[in-house]
Amino acid sequence: MTLIEAVPNVSEGRRPAVIQSLAAAVEGHADVRLLDVSSDAVHNRTVMTMVGPPEALRAALVSLFAVAIDAIDLRTHTGEHPRLGAVDVVPFVPLSPEDMPVCVDTAVAVAETVAARYDLPVYLYEAAARIPQRQRLEVIRHGEFEGLAEKMRASTWWPDFGPRRPHPSAGASVVGARTALIAFNVNLRTTNLDVARDIARHIRASNGGLPAVKAIGLRTADPEIMQVSTNLVDYRTTGLHTVFDAVRTEASRRDVTVVSSEIVGLAPAEALLSTATHHLRLADFTTNRILDYRLRP
Amino acid sequence: MTLIEAVPNVSEGRRPAVIQSLAAAVEGHADVRLLDVSSDAVHNRTVMTMVGPPEALRAALVSLFAVAIDAIDLRTHTGEHPRLGAVDVVPFVPLSPEDMPVCVDTAVAVAETVAARYDLPVYLYEAAARIPQRQRLEVIRHGEFEGLAEKMRASTWWPDFGPRRPHPSAGASVVGARTALIAFNVNLRTTNLDVARDIARHIRASNGGLPAVKAIGLRTADPEIMQVSTNLVDYRTTGLHTVFDAVRTEASRRDVTVVSSEIVGLAPAEALLSTATHHLRLADFTTNRILDYRLRP
Repeated sequence: MTLIEAVPNVSEGRRPAVIQSLAAAVEGHADVRLLDVSSDAVHNRTVMTMVGPPEALRAALVSLFAVAIDAIDLRTHTGEHPRLGAVDVVPFVPLSPEDMPVCVDTAVAVAETVAARYDLPVYLYEAAARIPQRQRLEVIRHGEFEGLAEKMRASTWWPDFGPRRPHPSAGASVVGARTALIAFNVNLRTTNLDVARDIARHIRASNGGLPAVKAIGLRTADPEIMQVSTNLVDYRTTGLHTVFDAVRTEASRRDVTVVSSEIVGLAPAEALLSTATHHLRLADFTTNRILDYRLRP
Repeated sequence: MTLIEAVPNVSEGRRPAVIQSLAAAVEGHADVRLLDVSSDAVHNRTVMTMVGPPEALRAALVSLFAVAIDAIDLRTHTGEHPRLGAVDVVPFVPLSPEDMPVCVDTAVAVAETVAARYDLPVYLYEAAARIPQRQRLEVIRHGEFEGLAEKMRASTWWPDFGPRRPHPSAGASVVGARTALIAFNVNLRTTNLDVARDIARHIRASNGGLPAVKAIGLRTADPEIMQVSTNLVDYRTTGLHTVFDAVRTEASRRDVTVVSSEIVGLAPAEALLSTATHHLRLADFTTNRILDYRLRP
């Protein structure tokens, strides 16, 4: 049976009762395994990682949308992380590369269902995009919830499914399919958000920085700590240590130190292993040499 | 069913046909899974990693001894790595800490059987040692095969099982039980073996260096590269990156650079993960956050 992954990002990271309801909506679907729930109060956002057969995942996502749309009102929502809607973005991710078409089909089915059921505009993105301009999430999300009504006046921003105006409280959602991504944040000891933003601009692929890296500068809960928040969209092209070292180098040029980093959600073992092999200059080491792997039945 | 690990180190790393026969001897036992065979021609040594139920492992080891004793003659054996016998050392390793008594019992059973069957002196070591002086492998192996006949004249070095003199061609074997160990070698760009030996002396626990680290200096196949060959006997106490960084610091003081490192056999994922989290200053990351782990049934 084909298993795929879904990683919905929901615009709620502060109210435990709502986050519990979101998890319960997914856990009500027996065939879906909710692997991780990572909430960030400053981002005011929760990233949920789940795995299951496409049809069960589709049903779980429809339930998740119901709870999120009921509980979250973007008109009063504040948070560091950019967002367009209550269920901000839902990527489906193949666990085996050949399952990308299944992920695209599942994304389209979820988009169509939730648009009709909740009267919600939905944009298809990345591998599921039907319009080239909509491949990149940040382009769709540009202007955020607050700019959405104005943005949707142009026919170029009419959604792939649903009404041609925002949902009053839930905004719009972006649903699609993409390869595995690592959400990796590097924390800097500075009170100056512009330092984090400037480093983010410097390292991101779209400005000619590190290939396959997206980056923005954000505040954290601690006013003395600012964050370079990155997405590694192909960790085999640019890995965790390359991003970390680049941020550290740029920070050091600005007399700022790196205090810590964090991975949001889950990460593939290979990404961490390659950091270890890089630092140890380890020759000829693959996941085949990891005892825990070899002990699998 | 209890599964335990065995990691026999055999004094043959050059003749492919012999190494294949050693592997075949193990693979002839259906319940035993041979996970890894790492041979080093310069060490003239092969490290085999296998897992199975205790009784099946016992039988596989008895078969392995038969092949090794038949094929290997220590009187003509040369190699960089210290050794006492054809099957030099056989540790049994619990995969769960509570299985150490099972490993001790299996070690004693193997020791008793091979001593009787092959007229071979066998010493019990580490957790299986019956004499405190025999806990440490390097103390038992001191003097190597060439010094064994003389060493065994003293009653303090009469074996735990078998005759009170070396096997003419197979020397003696050391069999026991211990916790998981990582064999980790760091390669230095120098023609001077004394640099590697000096660094090894500097970092090893027995000289007040890094806790839970054993180290010796060895030659490699490349005359321009010398090696600090280490055993991390408790990687949670002293991890790969700590050993690597210590060797690099000591090497740099001697104007020598570190070119690479290698792990012999298998290593637990946690040991590599902790190297990655150390270098990335990664907060709150455990193996629970590794996607591949969470996808296990």
